Amino acid sequence: MEKVRIGVVGLGVMGSYHADQLVKGEVKRAELTAVCDIDAKKMEPYKKNAKCFAKSEDLLRSGLVDAVIIATPHYFHTTIGIDAFSLGLHVLTEKPISVTKYDAARLIDAYKKARKKNPDIKFCAMFNQRTDPCYQKIRQLVKSGELGKIQRSNWIITNWFRTETYYRSGGWRATWAGEGGGVLVNQCPHQLDLYQWICGMPCAVVAVGGLGRYHDIEVEDDCSALLEYADGATGCFITTTGEAPGTNRFEIAGTRGRIVLDTLPEGRKLSFLRNVTDSLEVIKNSKYGSSAPEAWDVHIPLPGGYGGAHLQVKQDFVDAILDGKELLTPGEEGINGVELANAMQFSLMTKTRVELPMDAAAYNKYLKNLVKKSTFVKKEVVENKGDFASTSTK
Amino acid sequence: MEKVRIGVVGLGVMGSYHADQLVKGEVKRAELTAVCDIDAKKMEPYKKNAKCFAKSEDLLRSGLVDAVIIATPHYFHTTIGIDAFSLGLHVLTEKPISVTKYDAARLIDAYKKARKKNPDIKFCAMFNQRTDPCYQKIRQLVKSGELGKIQRSNWIITNWFRTETYYRSGGWRATWAGEGGGVLVNQCPHQLDLYQWICGMPCAVVAVGGLGRYHDIEVEDDCSALLEYADGATGCFITTTGEAPGTNRFEIAGTRGRIVLDTLPEGRKLSFLRNVTDSLEVIKNSKYGSSAPEAWDVHIPLPGGYGGAHLQVKQDFVDAILDGKELLTPGEEGINGVELANAMQFSLMTKTRVELPMDAAAYNKYLKNLVKKSTFVKKEVVENKGDFASTSTK
Repeated sequence: MEKVRIGVVGLGVMGSYHADQLVKGEVKRAELTAVCDIDAKKMEPYKKNAKCFAKSEDLLRSGLVDAVIIATPHYFHTTIGIDAFSLGLHVLTEKPISVTKYDAARLIDAYKKARKKNPDIKFCAMFNQRTDPCYQKIRQLVKSGELGKIQRSNWIITNWFRTETYYRSGGWRATWAGEGGGVLVNQCPHQLDLYQWICGMPCAVVAVGGLGRYHDIEVEDDCSALLEYADGATGCFITTTGEAPGTNRFEIAGTRGRIVLDTLPEGRKLSFLRNVTDSLEVIKNSKYGSSAPEAWDVHIPLPGGYGGAHLQVKQDFVDAILDGKELLTPGEEGINGVELANAMQFSLMTKTRVELPMDAAAYNKYLKNLVKKSTFVKKEVVENKGDFASTSTK
Repeated sequence: MEKVRIGVVGLGVMGSYHADQLVKGEVKRAELTAVCDIDAKKMEPYKKNAKCFAKSEDLLRSGLVDAVIIATPHYFHTTIGIDAFSLGLHVLTEKPISVTKYDAARLIDAYKKARKKNPDIKFCAMFNQRTDPCYQKIRQLVKSGELGKIQRSNWIITNWFRTETYYRSGGWRATWAGEGGGVLVNQCPHQLDLYQWICGMPCAVVAVGGLGRYHDIEVEDDCSALLEYADGATGCFITTTGEAPGTNRFEIAGTRGRIVLDTLPEGRKLSFLRNVTDSLEVIKNSKYGSSAPEAWDVHIPLPGGYGGAHLQVKQDFVDAILDGKELLTPGEEGINGVELANAMQFSLMTKTRVELPMDAAAYNKYLKNLVKKSTFVKKEVVENKGDFASTSTK
């Protein structure tokens, strides 16, 4: 294979963005050969380049594609992904890989089965923020031991401001049946993935917040969660779509120092205060009562911008298919962010502490019941004004 | 009365600091007339100026004092305070006013009884940080409605680094029997008071953390708590004595903007991003999906320093006694910070969500059981190196 033939399923904001980059030839050694959407109008712009399908199952079985990018509403990531794997196709899915841990496990099972037939099959997730040099550097500082033992982490990501117009921009949006959640399922999959990528998975979660606290929706638009890790470390994750100007501040405190990535009016700033001596050693050995170790204010040079983003993930996917290299954003790892979201949702709604690994079937049942009991009717569905692209790298 | 005759009970770090300021004449219209400590050596420096007592009950009944400053280990704030009120004396107690909400209520009851006999009797708490112009300004922004409706608050106060030497500097320190808690009872009363002073009291608390996580102690030295308010607002309070360099960042997000008071390597910084339009109005009326209101980066000029601190509170106490003015730091309000600490401790240890107003008797019983069951023995008690004064305004 010299070129990967790619089909894009779902031509909303993200799907058409991916399709456009493929048509423009921005992804090397790849071509757009097929598109699929329930709305024929959305396929119009691609008619010259790609075959159009009203149903994903027809696209997947057309023989025109080696790989598929799934950019549909979230629930279909699982079903279309499983269908694609059953046909031996490579899959790149938008985030989240699934709505529930239960579904994510089913999707990963389908991938594993496909890999038994063809060990070279690829499963990739659109975690474009893993290409951001800031997060790569933070992860390196943690994984290399530069920060010592991690004691505490804190991510406040509340700059997801959304209006009623946003929530009316799609009938599926912010409903249990259509999306399976709100800010945790739609806006935060990137941060939840990065959080587990950098700090690992907690062993318990407790959350507070609200369903439709700021918007006329039935799902969560506000959540604050505490995380407990098996080694005693703690974490805190705070998000909402109802706050302006909002905060995006990620802090990690370790025994060898503290890093903070903050979004200030003047731009992003990564600060690193580095302890000359490990703080646990000072606690044990100092003859003074409250003298913290000397901390150096360290400047880490970083390239500007947010890295290669979506384009880099697509290129990485294509390169992995053609050259057999490892993926930066393996789809299987997507289950972790989904589990974090589910645990926070479950805790928030039941006012209980949720232990991890969580009972995936129990939450799936709980969510199905929410869907069944839902009496929520959207007032009107208005057209998406398309002003989200600027926030896609957040 | 032209001068208030003051007795200081307990001549540890804070008590001797207060006594020294009185001896130096720094508190106008007040004089140190008596001191009390179980350690006669600690009274030596005051022999010339004040009568020395080994027992507080003798000092209180000496006829030498109109008012008393209580700077003993925490449990005695309640018992000595009740004794003083029963004798009609004015009381200024160090923080916390009591270890438990149960005790705080008893102390306040004693004050109310004393006030029935003498309406001019004063009960003051050493919340010196209320004199800090930064916190006064933040409170004013909240109370005046400048920030709109408060949506979320977050205080990370982890720059209380303490070593084993600190915890060995007093046999009572960090034990259930001697102190009734750790970082929440000893280091954080100021922040817990300011938090409720500025944002009010929550209706529920859930916390995670650890007992002796970083130190060889039996009480909490690490706590992260989520707060829920009756109007739907949420809060988050994070503290520990085991982290360096530590963070002190207080954030309040409202519908009209966000303030952050942060301690950066270059100093404290108060930032205020002010929404030109209330964010809830934008959520309702905007035709765009994710366009946050215009936010102005507002600089609020503030005097340097931390305000009049301990000296100002003592002067305020004396002025209130002599001139009948209202106190900046009324003792009765001290019960709120105590309840917050208790709720966090209770939630942390029982892994449950605690609703407020909490059951004061239930926690009191729980704590008494901890004291009873305690088998903790301190390895050695070393002399306090006295390097805490510099952190007292934190």
